[in-house]
Amino acid sequence: MKKIEDCTFGFVGLGLMGGAFAIALRKETIVGTKGRILAYDVDGGVLRQAEESGIIDKGFDNPSLMLQECDVVFICLNPGAEMHFMEKHINDFPPGTLITDISGVKQKPVEQIEALLRDDLDFIPGHPMAGREKGGFSEAARCSFRGKNYILTPLKRNRSENLVFMKELIRRIGFTRITETTPLDHDKKIAFTSQLCHVIAAALIDCEADPEITRFGGGSFEDLTRIAMLNAPMWTELFLDNHKELIECISRFESSLEKLKEMIDQGEKDKLVETLSLVRQRRAAMTDQNDLGDTQVTGIVAKS
Amino acid sequence: MKKIEDCTFGFVGLGLMGGAFAIALRKETIVGTKGRILAYDVDGGVLRQAEESGIIDKGFDNPSLMLQECDVVFICLNPGAEMHFMEKHINDFPPGTLITDISGVKQKPVEQIEALLRDDLDFIPGHPMAGREKGGFSEAARCSFRGKNYILTPLKRNRSENLVFMKELIRRIGFTRITETTPLDHDKKIAFTSQLCHVIAAALIDCEADPEITRFGGGSFEDLTRIAMLNAPMWTELFLDNHKELIECISRFESSLEKLKEMIDQGEKDKLVETLSLVRQRRAAMTDQNDLGDTQVTGIVAKS
Repeated sequence: MKKIEDCTFGFVGLGLMGGAFAIALRKETIVGTKGRILAYDVDGGVLRQAEESGIIDKGFDNPSLMLQECDVVFICLNPGAEMHFMEKHINDFPPGTLITDISGVKQKPVEQIEALLRDDLDFIPGHPMAGREKGGFSEAARCSFRGKNYILTPLKRNRSENLVFMKELIRRIGFTRITETTPLDHDKKIAFTSQLCHVIAAALIDCEADPEITRFGGGSFEDLTRIAMLNAPMWTELFLDNHKELIECISRFESSLEKLKEMIDQGEKDKLVETLSLVRQRRAAMTDQNDLGDTQVTGIVAKS
Repeated sequence: MKKIEDCTFGFVGLGLMGGAFAIALRKETIVGTKGRILAYDVDGGVLRQAEESGIIDKGFDNPSLMLQECDVVFICLNPGAEMHFMEKHINDFPPGTLITDISGVKQKPVEQIEALLRDDLDFIPGHPMAGREKGGFSEAARCSFRGKNYILTPLKRNRSENLVFMKELIRRIGFTRITETTPLDHDKKIAFTSQLCHVIAAALIDCEADPEITRFGGGSFEDLTRIAMLNAPMWTELFLDNHKELIECISRFESSLEKLKEMIDQGEKDKLVETLSLVRQRRAAMTDQNDLGDTQVTGIVAKS
């Protein structure tokens, strides 16, 4: 693999995340005099805007032509669209291309893409834990990677030099903690930290019709429901692609909620104080994790 | 009533909120050359610290002596301690004193305090919608009132000039939106925006033991569980004092959650997209409410 500075990066999809990656590569002057940033998107207006502002070197309305020039390709599409793209364009990648993605679920797309991956290509599945409530390229500049988490679910077949390259790239654009794990472990954890939280936020808004309710807000309600401003088709896709793990998380959460409800209903003061004290301690221990800045491998690396 | 600048303010309890009010009064130079800030607290160290830093003019270990000098008294205690204090000290207030409180539940304390209130005193129940996860006087300087909500549940017997005085005071220390309503309406709304959110945060932490889970966090989980760092005895008291309204809110939320769970489990894509789109619209309309900056009366003013 070339040095990062000398690579030609190609983005398939220049929306919020694709745009944010391209901006970060340009801003951190990671791409040198030999390196280039290319992009394909269905929205020609976005490509022209990105070209004019100097974020990308060239936009393509034909992805096959772009792929031929790339060393590294970021697939920045929703999971379903990603699968469709890979099936259609698997033979357009030049030999040796390093491909990565940003899909919020991993088991399904990784299994499908591995099944059709050519021997002379490398694919390192990834999930940058960054985003915004508002989507699209126009929001990309406001999407910061500083201090954020990045999950990789490497394949056994990944070339070790490519994995080193990916991790260096991820750090250089601002991410702090890189965790390597299996697609299954990723999907279980993400069902909890991300999807369950979005379902909860949606349920909170679903059960309250009064638009004046924020007059009674002190910050908690606002914090818990900010993510209810969700991209409905994308989150539907994520929820359904990971429905087994997500349903399991919702059930677990429902049991804990029911336990607390019962204590409140029965006026069990001592039990409540004890439970809430344990919750406080547990959350405090979690906060401390944010101080870590190292790469750590959890779970078992995926079988290929 | 005197002008705000000329009043002697007394704080019963100089913890997070009492301290934050005293600091705001001093900082905004609301208290003039004639006005003073006094405080009573069980912690003598806190009183000395507040005196030395010039936040209060004088600390008292005997609340009766302090009350005798006050024009306006802020009761900044948990609901149970507030009730206990008012029962014990109702005859220590000089005639004409304006009393207010900050209790997070209103029906129970307002009913109890009204029952023992002397005819020559005025009591305007209040709830400043501000706070921090960490409590105590040492955190008070970090508790900002800028742009926050304030709820008042006035009594029919309140003197209109005192209500005008309270609202001017609240605005001058930074609060933006003042809402006047009944104790019942307050408790119903607060059960939803505040207590339910705290129960949800606690349940989320209760059902996840892995301290490494924040490696998989992208902001949602962190936002939803920040308030799980709660003061267990205080929140237990608030939950139990308002258990009827809170249980009703938990049940409502559980129904919405169950509805979404069912759609995910059954793979009902179209219904999910539709529901999540409505949620997004509804939340967007709520956010807009934050732009308001006026006083508004909702519900019916409490009977006295």
